[in-house]
Amino acid sequence: MRYKKDIVVLKFGGTSVGDIEKIKRVADRVIRSKNEGKSVVVVVSAMGDTTDKLIGLAGEIASNPSRREMDMLVSTGECVSGSLLAMAIQEKGYKSVSLTGGQAGIVTDELYSNAKILNIRTERILKELRRDRIVIVAGFQGVDTGGNITTLGRGGSDTTAVALATALKAKYCEIYTDVEGVYSADPNMVEEAKKLESISYDEMLELASSGAKVIHLRAVEFAKKNNVILHIRSSFNDNEGTWVMDDFKKDVRMERPVITGVTYDVGEAKVSIFGLEDKPGIAADLFGRLAEKNINVDLIVQNVSEKNIAAISFTIRTEDVPLAKKVLKKMKNVRTEIDTEIAKVSIIGAGMQSNPGVAAKMFKILAEKDINIEMISTSPIRISCVIKENRIKEAVKALHAGFELA
Amino acid sequence: MRYKKDIVVLKFGGTSVGDIEKIKRVADRVIRSKNEGKSVVVVVSAMGDTTDKLIGLAGEIASNPSRREMDMLVSTGECVSGSLLAMAIQEKGYKSVSLTGGQAGIVTDELYSNAKILNIRTERILKELRRDRIVIVAGFQGVDTGGNITTLGRGGSDTTAVALATALKAKYCEIYTDVEGVYSADPNMVEEAKKLESISYDEMLELASSGAKVIHLRAVEFAKKNNVILHIRSSFNDNEGTWVMDDFKKDVRMERPVITGVTYDVGEAKVSIFGLEDKPGIAADLFGRLAEKNINVDLIVQNVSEKNIAAISFTIRTEDVPLAKKVLKKMKNVRTEIDTEIAKVSIIGAGMQSNPGVAAKMFKILAEKDINIEMISTSPIRISCVIKENRIKEAVKALHAGFELA
Repeated sequence: MRYKKDIVVLKFGGTSVGDIEKIKRVADRVIRSKNEGKSVVVVVSAMGDTTDKLIGLAGEIASNPSRREMDMLVSTGECVSGSLLAMAIQEKGYKSVSLTGGQAGIVTDELYSNAKILNIRTERILKELRRDRIVIVAGFQGVDTGGNITTLGRGGSDTTAVALATALKAKYCEIYTDVEGVYSADPNMVEEAKKLESISYDEMLELASSGAKVIHLRAVEFAKKNNVILHIRSSFNDNEGTWVMDDFKKDVRMERPVITGVTYDVGEAKVSIFGLEDKPGIAADLFGRLAEKNINVDLIVQNVSEKNIAAISFTIRTEDVPLAKKVLKKMKNVRTEIDTEIAKVSIIGAGMQSNPGVAAKMFKILAEKDINIEMISTSPIRISCVIKENRIKEAVKALHAGFELA
Repeated sequence: MRYKKDIVVLKFGGTSVGDIEKIKRVADRVIRSKNEGKSVVVVVSAMGDTTDKLIGLAGEIASNPSRREMDMLVSTGECVSGSLLAMAIQEKGYKSVSLTGGQAGIVTDELYSNAKILNIRTERILKELRRDRIVIVAGFQGVDTGGNITTLGRGGSDTTAVALATALKAKYCEIYTDVEGVYSADPNMVEEAKKLESISYDEMLELASSGAKVIHLRAVEFAKKNNVILHIRSSFNDNEGTWVMDDFKKDVRMERPVITGVTYDVGEAKVSIFGLEDKPGIAADLFGRLAEKNINVDLIVQNVSEKNIAAISFTIRTEDVPLAKKVLKKMKNVRTEIDTEIAKVSIIGAGMQSNPGVAAKMFKILAEKDINIEMISTSPIRISCVIKENRIKEAVKALHAGFELA
C-alpha cells in the first residue's frame, strides 16, 4: 500500500543532540515539521562525544577489538539519543516512537564497522506513521541478515537519512547541522562568503570531498543516485539552508554562476619521490603498496626529468604520513621528500564545464598574489591547486573575490 | 538436536563489571569455567551506576516518560558491558560473542519496564556454543513479539540467568556477587556468622524476601519452579559459595539444623490505624486502596479492642510512606500512627516445619534481652518479629547465638 501523506526525513548530528536542552530544542523543531502536515521520520546521531567515549573504553580492553563487538558497543549511543528524543516529543504532547536500525528495517551486509545498506524493510516505519507517530530512527546502524548489529562507519547517520528518504519516497531529506548551509567559501575565512540557495549533487560531491564538512560524501552519492532532494540547514534557527538537487538546472542553468564556491583542505601532505626508473609498472607498484596499507592518495603528478629518470609527487592525509614512510623505506635508489606544510585550494562549479578559461583565470589570480602552485588536479566541475599552507587564507579570499562570489 | 556438553550459566552484577579492570577480572573468571570443559553462557548487568544515570537523563526530559522508551534507553547499558566483556575474553585468546536479549531469543510480554519472559528461542545461543564461543547475554532485557525492546524490572539479570539455565538445561547457574554466599546472619552484624554450604529454594525465598540481597526473589521462584541449581558466590575469589537446591534434602534432611539463618530488614515502616468500625469489608477496602497505589503491605495484625472498634497494624516499605499518608487521609473517624523506627528480624529454616516450639524459643530469646515484640508473622519456614529499630543488632546476635548457628 502506497503511503499517502508527504513524508520528510530530518537528520540531526551529534552536536545538535549534545545535551538535554538541545534534545528538547530538536523536539520543537521536529514538531514544527509535523505541524506543517508532514509525516516525519527523524534520524539521530549519538549525543556529543558518546561514540568517542565508548571507543575509548574498548581501547582500554583491547588494542584491536573485534569489529562485531565494536558495532554492538557503539550502536548503543544512537539508541540513547533516539529514546530521549522520543520522550521529549511525547512530553510536548505528540506521539512518537524510537526504533533501532534493526527495528527500522535497515538491513546491511556483514562488513562490521563499515557496513553497506542492502535494503530497507519499511513496513514498521509506515505502520508507525499511519498511527500518526513521529518516528525516530537510530542513525549509523543496521543489522545483517543474521540479526547482528552493524554500523555504517563515520558519517553513517547521513547515509541512514538519505537511504530512508529513498526507501520511503520522501519529499526531501533535511540535514540539520551547526552551520546555516553550504557557503561560497568558509565564512570564518572569507567575510563576504554567502550562503548558496541551491547546488547540484556533483557540486556538493566536490565540495564534500574538498573539505566542506556539512554532509558525508557517501550520503551525497546515495542522494544523487536516487535523486533524493537534500536540504542542508541550521538546527539553531528556521532560516532556509542550501538545497541540493539537480532538477533546478533544467531551466535556470544559464543564470547560474560559473563557479559555486571555493574550498580548501589543510589536512594533506605532499610526498615527492625522485630518481624513479621511468619504466612501466613502477607507479603501479608504488601505489599498489600504498593501497595495501589503506593509504588514500589524492592528487598525483608525474614528470620525466632527464635520462628517463622520473619524479612523482602525490598527496595523502597527514595522519597517514608515518605509515607511508614505512612503505617508502622499502624502495631502493630513490630519494623522498615529505612536506606537511601544504594546503589544497579548490574552485567548484557545474558551470565551468561549458566555460573554457576557468583554469587559466584561477592560475592568474594566484599568480597575481605571487602564490606558487605546486600541483594541479582537475575534474569536470572542480580545479584544485596545492600551495604552501601559510598562503591558504590569501588564496581563498583572492579566488572568492576574483570569481565574484560575494 | 540435544546439546551434548555441560552448559553452565554465569551471572555477574553491576558491581562485578563496574569498571574496565573488573571486566577483565570477570573475563579471567569466565575463562576458568570454560577451561573446566564447560560450555559457558554469561549474563551481565550494566556497569556500576549506568542504569541510574540513564534514568536520570530521562528524568530531565519527562516527569513520567513512556515505559517503552525507558526500556529502549536503559537496555543499552547491558549491551555496553556485554560487548566490552566479549572483547576482554577475545583479548585473552578465547572465542566469544555478545548478544542482546532479543538476539539471545528472549521473548517477553509487552509489559514494558516489568516484562515477564514468555519463552526463550535457544537456537542462536546453541549455534554459538557449538562454534566453541563463550556467549555473553545482556541481562535484564528481551523483546516482545512485535520486536520492541522490553526490560524485566530490577533484579532482572538474575531472572535472565535462571531463565536461560532452564531453557538451556544448564548443569547449574552461578550468581556472582560481592559477598561469599549466603550467611547464617549478616557478617557485618554478627561476627560468628558462617557461610551456608547449601540451602533449599524455600529457605532462599524466605531469605530473599526478608532482607538478604544476594539474589532477586523472582529469580529464586523461577529456579525453584524449574529445579535450576543455583550457586551464589563471590566474583572476587574462587571459594565455593552457597548452593541452592532441593535434592540434597532427600538423604541429609535429619542432619540439617532446624534454623538456617537470621535476617533483618530496616526498610519498613509500621502503620497503625485506631477506631475502625469492626464490620466486614473495612479491611478489604483499606488494603484495596493501598494496592491501587501499588503500595506493598507486608505484615498485618488486626485485633478488636473494645465496643466492636478494631485496631489494625501493618508494615509497608519506608519509601511508600508519603503515598500511604495520602490514602489514609481519605479515611474518616480514624486515628493513624506511622512509625518508621522499626525493624523486622526473621529466623528461617526448613527444619522448623517438623520442630514445634521454635517460635516460643524465638520469643523467649528476645524477651530475655528485654526486646519488645510489636508484631509477629509466620510462614511454614520463617518467623518474623517487628521490634524497635535501635534493638535490631542485639536481636540478630542473640537469635544467632540462641539457635546455635555459629
